[in-house]
Amino acid sequence: MPNDKNNARNKKQPDIKTQNTKKTKGMWSGRFDTSTEEATRAINLSLTIDRRLYQEDIFGSIAYAEELKNSQVLNAKQAKSITEGLQQIQDEIQNGQFPFDESLEDIHMNIEARLTSIIGQDGERLHTGRSRNDQVATDMRLWMRAATKNVEKEITNLQSSLLLKAENTIDWIMPGFTHLQSAQPITFAHHCLAYHEMLQRDRERLLDAVKRNEQSPLGAGALAGSALPIDRNRLAKKLGFIKAMENSIDAVSARDFIIEFIANLAILATHLSRLAEDIILWASTPFNFVKLSHETSTGSSLMPQKQNPDGAELVRAKAAKLYGNLITILCVMKALPLAYAKDMQEDKAAMFDSFDQIILALNALSATINGLKPNRKKLRDALNSGFPEATDLADWLVQKLNMPFRQAHEITGKIVKQAEVCKCSALKELPLAQAQKISPLITQKALDSLTVEQSLARRNALGASAPVRVAEQIKRLKNN
Amino acid sequence: MPNDKNNARNKKQPDIKTQNTKKTKGMWSGRFDTSTEEATRAINLSLTIDRRLYQEDIFGSIAYAEELKNSQVLNAKQAKSITEGLQQIQDEIQNGQFPFDESLEDIHMNIEARLTSIIGQDGERLHTGRSRNDQVATDMRLWMRAATKNVEKEITNLQSSLLLKAENTIDWIMPGFTHLQSAQPITFAHHCLAYHEMLQRDRERLLDAVKRNEQSPLGAGALAGSALPIDRNRLAKKLGFIKAMENSIDAVSARDFIIEFIANLAILATHLSRLAEDIILWASTPFNFVKLSHETSTGSSLMPQKQNPDGAELVRAKAAKLYGNLITILCVMKALPLAYAKDMQEDKAAMFDSFDQIILALNALSATINGLKPNRKKLRDALNSGFPEATDLADWLVQKLNMPFRQAHEITGKIVKQAEVCKCSALKELPLAQAQKISPLITQKALDSLTVEQSLARRNALGASAPVRVAEQIKRLKNN
Amino acid sequence: MPNDKNNARNKKQPDIKTQNTKKTKGMWSGRFDTSTEEATRAINLSLTIDRRLYQEDIFGSIAYAEELKNSQVLNAKQAKSITEGLQQIQDEIQNGQFPFDESLEDIHMNIEARLTSIIGQDGERLHTGRSRNDQVATDMRLWMRAATKNVEKEITNLQSSLLLKAENTIDWIMPGFTHLQSAQPITFAHHCLAYHEMLQRDRERLLDAVKRNEQSPLGAGALAGSALPIDRNRLAKKLGFIKAMENSIDAVSARDFIIEFIANLAILATHLSRLAEDIILWASTPFNFVKLSHETSTGSSLMPQKQNPDGAELVRAKAAKLYGNLITILCVMKALPLAYAKDMQEDKAAMFDSFDQIILALNALSATINGLKPNRKKLRDALNSGFPEATDLADWLVQKLNMPFRQAHEITGKIVKQAEVCKCSALKELPLAQAQKISPLITQKALDSLTVEQSLARRNALGASAPVRVAEQIKRLKNN
Amino acid sequence: MPNDKNNARNKKQPDIKTQNTKKTKGMWSGRFDTSTEEATRAINLSLTIDRRLYQEDIFGSIAYAEELKNSQVLNAKQAKSITEGLQQIQDEIQNGQFPFDESLEDIHMNIEARLTSIIGQDGERLHTGRSRNDQVATDMRLWMRAATKNVEKEITNLQSSLLLKAENTIDWIMPGFTHLQSAQPITFAHHCLAYHEMLQRDRERLLDAVKRNEQSPLGAGALAGSALPIDRNRLAKKLGFIKAMENSIDAVSARDFIIEFIANLAILATHLSRLAEDIILWASTPFNFVKLSHETSTGSSLMPQKQNPDGAELVRAKAAKLYGNLITILCVMKALPLAYAKDMQEDKAAMFDSFDQIILALNALSATINGLKPNRKKLRDALNSGFPEATDLADWLVQKLNMPFRQAHEITGKIVKQAEVCKCSALKELPLAQAQKISPLITQKALDSLTVEQSLARRNALGASAPVRVAEQIKRLKNN
Repeated sequence: MPNDKNNARNKKQPDIKTQNTKKTKGMWSGRFDTSTEEATRAINLSLTIDRRLYQEDIFGSIAYAEELKNSQVLNAKQAKSITEGLQQIQDEIQNGQFPFDESLEDIHMNIEARLTSIIGQDGERLHTGRSRNDQVATDMRLWMRAATKNVEKEITNLQSSLLLKAENTIDWIMPGFTHLQSAQPITFAHHCLAYHEMLQRDRERLLDAVKRNEQSPLGAGALAGSALPIDRNRLAKKLGFIKAMENSIDAVSARDFIIEFIANLAILATHLSRLAEDIILWASTPFNFVKLSHETSTGSSLMPQKQNPDGAELVRAKAAKLYGNLITILCVMKALPLAYAKDMQEDKAAMFDSFDQIILALNALSATINGLKPNRKKLRDALNSGFPEATDLADWLVQKLNMPFRQAHEITGKIVKQAEVCKCSALKELPLAQAQKISPLITQKALDSLTVEQSLARRNALGASAPVRVAEQIKRLKNN
Repeated sequence: MPNDKNNARNKKQPDIKTQNTKKTKGMWSGRFDTSTEEATRAINLSLTIDRRLYQEDIFGSIAYAEELKNSQVLNAKQAKSITEGLQQIQDEIQNGQFPFDESLEDIHMNIEARLTSIIGQDGERLHTGRSRNDQVATDMRLWMRAATKNVEKEITNLQSSLLLKAENTIDWIMPGFTHLQSAQPITFAHHCLAYHEMLQRDRERLLDAVKRNEQSPLGAGALAGSALPIDRNRLAKKLGFIKAMENSIDAVSARDFIIEFIANLAILATHLSRLAEDIILWASTPFNFVKLSHETSTGSSLMPQKQNPDGAELVRAKAAKLYGNLITILCVMKALPLAYAKDMQEDKAAMFDSFDQIILALNALSATINGLKPNRKKLRDALNSGFPEATDLADWLVQKLNMPFRQAHEITGKIVKQAEVCKCSALKELPLAQAQKISPLITQKALDSLTVEQSLARRNALGASAPVRVAEQIKRLKNN
Repeated sequence: MPNDKNNARNKKQPDIKTQNTKKTKGMWSGRFDTSTEEATRAINLSLTIDRRLYQEDIFGSIAYAEELKNSQVLNAKQAKSITEGLQQIQDEIQNGQFPFDESLEDIHMNIEARLTSIIGQDGERLHTGRSRNDQVATDMRLWMRAATKNVEKEITNLQSSLLLKAENTIDWIMPGFTHLQSAQPITFAHHCLAYHEMLQRDRERLLDAVKRNEQSPLGAGALAGSALPIDRNRLAKKLGFIKAMENSIDAVSARDFIIEFIANLAILATHLSRLAEDIILWASTPFNFVKLSHETSTGSSLMPQKQNPDGAELVRAKAAKLYGNLITILCVMKALPLAYAKDMQEDKAAMFDSFDQIILALNALSATINGLKPNRKKLRDALNSGFPEATDLADWLVQKLNMPFRQAHEITGKIVKQAEVCKCSALKELPLAQAQKISPLITQKALDSLTVEQSLARRNALGASAPVRVAEQIKRLKNN
Repeated sequence: MPNDKNNARNKKQPDIKTQNTKKTKGMWSGRFDTSTEEATRAINLSLTIDRRLYQEDIFGSIAYAEELKNSQVLNAKQAKSITEGLQQIQDEIQNGQFPFDESLEDIHMNIEARLTSIIGQDGERLHTGRSRNDQVATDMRLWMRAATKNVEKEITNLQSSLLLKAENTIDWIMPGFTHLQSAQPITFAHHCLAYHEMLQRDRERLLDAVKRNEQSPLGAGALAGSALPIDRNRLAKKLGFIKAMENSIDAVSARDFIIEFIANLAILATHLSRLAEDIILWASTPFNFVKLSHETSTGSSLMPQKQNPDGAELVRAKAAKLYGNLITILCVMKALPLAYAKDMQEDKAAMFDSFDQIILALNALSATINGLKPNRKKLRDALNSGFPEATDLADWLVQKLNMPFRQAHEITGKIVKQAEVCKCSALKELPLAQAQKISPLITQKALDSLTVEQSLARRNALGASAPVRVAEQIKRLKNN
């Protein structure tokens, strides 16, 4: 099974040359009078993109050759020769020595042609009963499975970064915002763990998609299925799938597994963009809640003082690319009649780019979080405006005076208004007399109790922001 | 648990009036000097859309009142009064007698205000410790669960229609197309079953999403969690969820469950658009493969002869709406800082519209399939062009002559070209002498064997189009 | 010419009933055996959406009847009768007395059927030589022209609000941000005027689109053109267009005018979303640059202290809806073969919704700006962090010492770093000795000159932020 | 002014190496302690994409150096040295000899660093008073202007191909379709000219966008404008713009010119996708209206008989990529606060890719049209089903019998139904007696007149499909 290394930064991309323009007619030269016109060739060319599937293509071809042997379509010698030839090709590609040839259109024909040039005419037997339609559908399912593993690993890294940051900030109190207005006190740790939860669902979504697609298209041929005595389920298991797909037309025309993969990455990117936004806000001059490390910031060509959160901004922007790719793949597939149309060639660019961008974004965000230094004092000071303790006064009215909540809300609203008039920075600074003008039952003790620390500690139901709850949550996550 | 009937065509929509414009300040009148300006009110108004959540809102509020009682925040009398009041409100809404009031902004405040007007100030206690943030997140999870059931049911109906059509056409031979060119013989049944498979994955994807979101936000409050002694897991189970969400900030700010729902419907819509396209093509004047029933076609205002597949065309177009809604919800959520922003109000229109459109599309497509009459003769006649039996000649060369496939492909290509020159409508019409000029080893028997019926029967691997395989597949699906 | 009042809040929407279900076969009853099946009818129903075109439809039909008279297809009496009948129908609709009938599918057939019921069989002559295909294309061009006028008016209102705010804040100094980091001093006025410029381009874009589409489809028939002796250019001018479209197939199948309209609104919405974001940031608790009026803010159901910028947040979210609609209309039209397909019915919902949302957003934003109170002191105080005067030190090094800019940038960067270490809030607070350790040529006078006020005044090239330039710009805009 | 050659197939892409990883701190080394972390560097790297702007960047820098000289910021010697150095760099890049260095992040810093290495420290004076913010905004406006010229040229080529095809098929009669049902007779030429019209509007839209953006951002600096005595209007004219942008913040933050460009290309792509769809249908086995040339078709790896319209299919799919790019750029810009954020770096990939894809599509479609052979007999034969002459019978009833159109429509519908029952392939084959059962006034002469040729000739209003009208239209277009 291919041990995929499709990391965006590990791609080897040897140059592609047009080795033999006379051969552009390629594999359909029997039928056609002429070679392909230049603009038609240019728009058809997929090798620059699909060569990234080479590992999966070779892995699939070796399994197919073995199945042809097992079902006695090939003899043992032929199969062995094919397998060895393919292994040599894999080495050549990995070593940057493979003679890529644009005139052969795609990675599949490049490999097949090279195979024949290495092992002779047995190479021309590999494609017996197979079509590029089932071949590429197989390659992409294999690629998607391996890519998911990579994404999962980077999600785990980001979760670890968040968890580490949370461990160190369990009681670092800060304003929780709604509408970017100070709402109620939370902690930096609690905020970090919210993203940990989102990422956990993102991971499960990706794994569900892999599970749903552990079925092999191979042996479906062009669309009508195979006329050879092959055992498609045996072949499927050889490829690490659970079983063969049950309808040959569906097998070659389905691309929902790609859409689902890209959609899942788009949802993940949405979560990353929210975390990026929070970081950009926290690092902004007016917030000043955190400092980014110099390693994960950049400067300005003109303004010497700047330290910009470019990494986070680009993560935010990458979501837009993921959305674009999602729209592309949906629109490519919309209203395509069965079974296969060349439009579907555009699936690969969307899939690869979404993967590359998400890996870049996950890595950059992990690095940013690792280098992030929250400023405990600034976080705490930020609670001195916006009256985030107001809910607690309403709660006091409800609990101590048995006042219905709506009335308590109304009275507290008036007290906030009065505190604003008096330029208090916290409700407890309001003179008792003024508070009692609004509600005579309010006591000095009630006002004194309105500290953000008490507010935080009081919110201690399951999942709430009280440090005791957050500590439990961290413990649980670390034990997972 | 609400037995949702959110069918697009069953919606009761009593008129909404602005009952009390003086009250526009609404629930925050303590804090604010003035009522809301008209344009601000207009853009904030969500009642026209979110009143559709009334069942879920009442169901959630009754469970919450019970939990407040169980945790002794309310006494038994208060809780009973609230529950009865809410049940009365549910009746009022279902009977079209509820006094909807725009000035109360949304369904939540409409119900709460009405509750207080019915039961008095105990109504003002319901919202104790709760925020609309956790309330609406709960309502929407409940709604999404019920809506999924509806979609699932309509998927099953469409699958049944397809299966029935397949049962009657197991050996109705027709050209399978790739690139809309005749490729290989398949059967009408085999084509129908390809869609059955796609729909099955669509169903599973929807169910996975429900399963992933069987967690309750209720009790998360505005964002910082509850300061009341409630048991959020007990409350979650009361609502039919498995457990409470573990981070209060995540609980109120997460909308990935909605994006996933909408994305899954978009993928489903893509499949429906492909089926619609096939139907439009089949019913087109040049194809003439099927007749639509008069019941599921429409005519023209000008051209008296027209019988148009409007239903299928609209299904095709609905995919575009689903894509639009998906982009909307993704873009709404992109880069929103935690925890809640009013932007998120736009989630509902996207979710409801996607559901309504998909129900319309599933229903219309089921009706279209039910009324569809394939023309067996036209389907068969269509095989007399495009040489869909060509692969079988290549196969013959491989199997009888042990020729490598690539060479067999080349030779067959030349024979097709020659048959075209001779204006043959099938390869077996080519004079043997001409075929032998290209490859002397070709026999008359070989040419004679090139019937589309034999071609079909030969493709009998698992999942292939041979009638024997298709019959097995139908049997299996009927027993599910 | 219809004086459109398609304001989102002025829509009269009388109830629609199914008057006569037996007639569902409608206008194609000659050809069809049966009435339309329920799900097919439901997905086809467009009356709920397209009745909004009634003014344009009647205006177009009156012009068409007159052209039929002028070309002697109708006699004068017939034409007069039709015109009077249509005028009566317009009154009925405006007064909420029109008997809308779902079974007649759309607004066009509703009006035609009502016409015949009012004036008798002359009503059946109106559609002579016309198709709904050219009719609806005409209606929508008329609607788009009127809608553009409405949008233009609201753009002007928002520009006026911005200009007024700018006039009062010409020298209200504040940090200009890049990457949300303090960059260089600007003024509140200069910032407002940036949006004025964007809106000006948005307006021109909309007007270009109207101009490009001042061509009439009417008389193109179903697709092949008219067989009547009508003068399409005369008819076009009657409708306020410049001329008739020159290809009948293009006339009925083109929807680029709608895509362009929706795309232009999406670009406008992008600008509005940026302004909304700035307002949300300015009003956030940590920035605290502005106060929103109570009239244009909203509160919280739970937290009594909250004053939320809901209007601005919803404007921000509306951009997402506009993007969704743009994707919808593009995807509807993608790969539709000529000339007309029912898919195109979905164009109207996208067009109307984009218009409604943009009007809501423009109005809400104007109200928000009108109610916005910038806090001059807070704006000025925000310049005391982030060293926005750093560029001026680099400039001093370049101008006074003839130092190459890159070296000046490097030296200034070091000085900023040193000032940070010393916890200075401005560069001029750095002891001269420390500055001279980095660059011995720096003078105390140089440091003293580094005030943000001087920095602002120095930037006085065309378009720059110096108050003198901004004042000129305001004067120019007011004289336009 | 740069004579851009941004053709997708002409791109020279010399390898990029990381020349000097120690310098990764780059131009902000004064301020920062450390070099950039690897993942942050990877996500920031834009050189692989933005080096395509090199011509515009150099052109803009030469103009800027000259303006610095004219305003006496630089002396003549310095400016000359800079200009010559930049010209040398341009040669180096064009010859593939430029030492691209990833560690310098983008094309701007690569060119500036190289300039200093060539001419010494005068190179460090070029950026005086300039920011990459105004620099890149200028580069992209220049690029967009040049790219538009390229697109315009390829639109003209496609229009010429269509016009040539139309000239040869003025009276090649074929069915015009609505809903893919035979509707009325048209000609192949008339169909081709519909696309000519669409492309003409696409061209005008692109030119409008260029015109709207003939304003120069240069001299706006980072955001606050220039403190140098430069004349921005003089500089603008030097760059070929009409004038300078009037607000410095807008100048650096506006990207509506890019969105508009991408949106216009998306609309163009929509039109191309429709033409592609028509070609795919025409070439399909059941339609068989046209043959594609072998040069512009491709074959199958498995099925030897296939001749697939891959070029047209890929053009259809490219629309999806254009939509994706449009969504990307809109989502990047949504809700970005002023003035600049790094998110905006993603604008270039979207802009370049949209351009590349549209050039590929235009070229491939021109080639496909050039190679297309319509089959006159098949086009004509296709009129023998679907009764496209039915409208003419209704017209006869209206004109000869003065029957109201709706009644004529009803009667004709019945006659069509009867003709179907009788298995007639045209209405004139219906026995007169049967027709008269439906309407006794129908004459044999009326039936005889119902030929598609007469139907075509009768539609001769302006823009209609009568050959005489189409010929006039072609003449007019050729004289343009």
